[in-house]
Amino acid sequence: MHISGQTRVFMVIGDPVAQVRAPVLFNRIFQQHDIDAVLVPAHVPAGRAASFAREVLGSGSIAGLWATVPHKPALLPALSGIDVHGRRAGSVNAVRRAADGTLEGALFDGLGLVGALAHHGIALAGRRVLLLGAGGAGAAIAAALLDTPIAQLSIHDLGDRARRLVERLQSEGSGPRLHAASADPAGHDLIIQATPLGMNPADPLPLDVERIEPGTQVFDILMKSATTPLMRACAARGIEAHAGFEMLVQQVPAYLEFFGLPEVARAMRADLSGVRQVITA
Amino acid sequence: MHISGQTRVFMVIGDPVAQVRAPVLFNRIFQQHDIDAVLVPAHVPAGRAASFAREVLGSGSIAGLWATVPHKPALLPALSGIDVHGRRAGSVNAVRRAADGTLEGALFDGLGLVGALAHHGIALAGRRVLLLGAGGAGAAIAAALLDTPIAQLSIHDLGDRARRLVERLQSEGSGPRLHAASADPAGHDLIIQATPLGMNPADPLPLDVERIEPGTQVFDILMKSATTPLMRACAARGIEAHAGFEMLVQQVPAYLEFFGLPEVARAMRADLSGVRQVITA
Repeated sequence: MHISGQTRVFMVIGDPVAQVRAPVLFNRIFQQHDIDAVLVPAHVPAGRAASFAREVLGSGSIAGLWATVPHKPALLPALSGIDVHGRRAGSVNAVRRAADGTLEGALFDGLGLVGALAHHGIALAGRRVLLLGAGGAGAAIAAALLDTPIAQLSIHDLGDRARRLVERLQSEGSGPRLHAASADPAGHDLIIQATPLGMNPADPLPLDVERIEPGTQVFDILMKSATTPLMRACAARGIEAHAGFEMLVQQVPAYLEFFGLPEVARAMRADLSGVRQVITA
Repeated sequence: MHISGQTRVFMVIGDPVAQVRAPVLFNRIFQQHDIDAVLVPAHVPAGRAASFAREVLGSGSIAGLWATVPHKPALLPALSGIDVHGRRAGSVNAVRRAADGTLEGALFDGLGLVGALAHHGIALAGRRVLLLGAGGAGAAIAAALLDTPIAQLSIHDLGDRARRLVERLQSEGSGPRLHAASADPAGHDLIIQATPLGMNPADPLPLDVERIEPGTQVFDILMKSATTPLMRACAARGIEAHAGFEMLVQQVPAYLEFFGLPEVARAMRADLSGVRQVITA
């Protein structure tokens, strides 16, 4: 990796940021494709994301920001433009400078989920989906699922979070297939787990696995380990379940395209195996 | 070069910035010494240096800034602390975050000049120095020369620039060996050329070479090429003259020490040949 005064710089911001895998992944892609660009981490304190984005993207050579927790919703006040998923979910994970100098954001988490389901051969047409978790990840996933031919989307979370997300999505012009629901898997044939439950060994399972109907497919977006407690409980009952890593893999081409590298994005779409290797390493 | 979420990030800011050699130089040093750090360029528009410094150094993982033209004086409003050379000259070329979160700046150009003179075996004790140019570089050089045992420092520039620099330096408590002067080299035995003259082929020489007294030594800080017009004119008269590259070389350990890498600084001080190779390449 050769960094000169002419190298385009991208940053990934988070609080914390030490855990992010984006620099390893994207710097490898830049090198492999001979792109004179580098992605570096920046630990930006909560509350500073919007001003940080405005200031660093005022630099002509800093080409874009990746954003992770807790900055995804906090970036919105800095943006003049936002893609449809970001607007529905109220958060973005990528920000770039438009030709007129204003900032544009986009949200790729939901695209990543939809791509991951396709990768695992999970069809969406006509499915009755239960989404557990209406936080940042859940909102991003719901925002993208509204563009797919699913039959219905039930969203569950604690308190009134699910109801508020449903109202937000409906106010963005989305249809009647959407409602807040309990965590009961009965009556659903695709379950997407987007709560933090499973991060700690003492966590309860996010739903009653005994009530999952045969033939239902489960996708757990937790990325702490290759096999989550929910996946193990499903396996014990013969229920098909998949881990979240593929969500990250599937977002990679969208980032590259957003940041003005369509040829690299195309090459990645044709073969994501190298990306998969880095992310699951 | 392996960049992860834990890598410490440094930035070099300038307007323009594409020409800076610091990223190539310092990234090589970081790699050779196994330091998990990276230096990336940022093209920061004139007028934005102070706010850029405040914002990016509010990030816990961005460890410091290198500054080049036109940002060196513009950074001062962002600083709570400044070293003596920076205070005298009214500019800094390095900014870091102190333990209490405030910003500290330092100026290493003058140290670089003093180191370069020593490298070329040019003694300073008792010398009558003529400094041509009271701009940013001239001020930095004058600030450092005041700490050396020179006999007198004559400063020349157009208009009242030299007089203003002399007044500024005297107000910082410096002594009577200092005065504004014409560009006449007579009566001086060390000449330091710190004007931009020589950058363009059509430039006149910055002084009358015929009037340089025998035995006088000349140092031209221009770094555009290895041999400057002034150096060629001196050579034709048998006057010893040196190029400015070594000024950059000699600053490298000071930067490393300032940014919390004293062991690497020590290793560099012991052998600067690798640095010299990169800078003159």
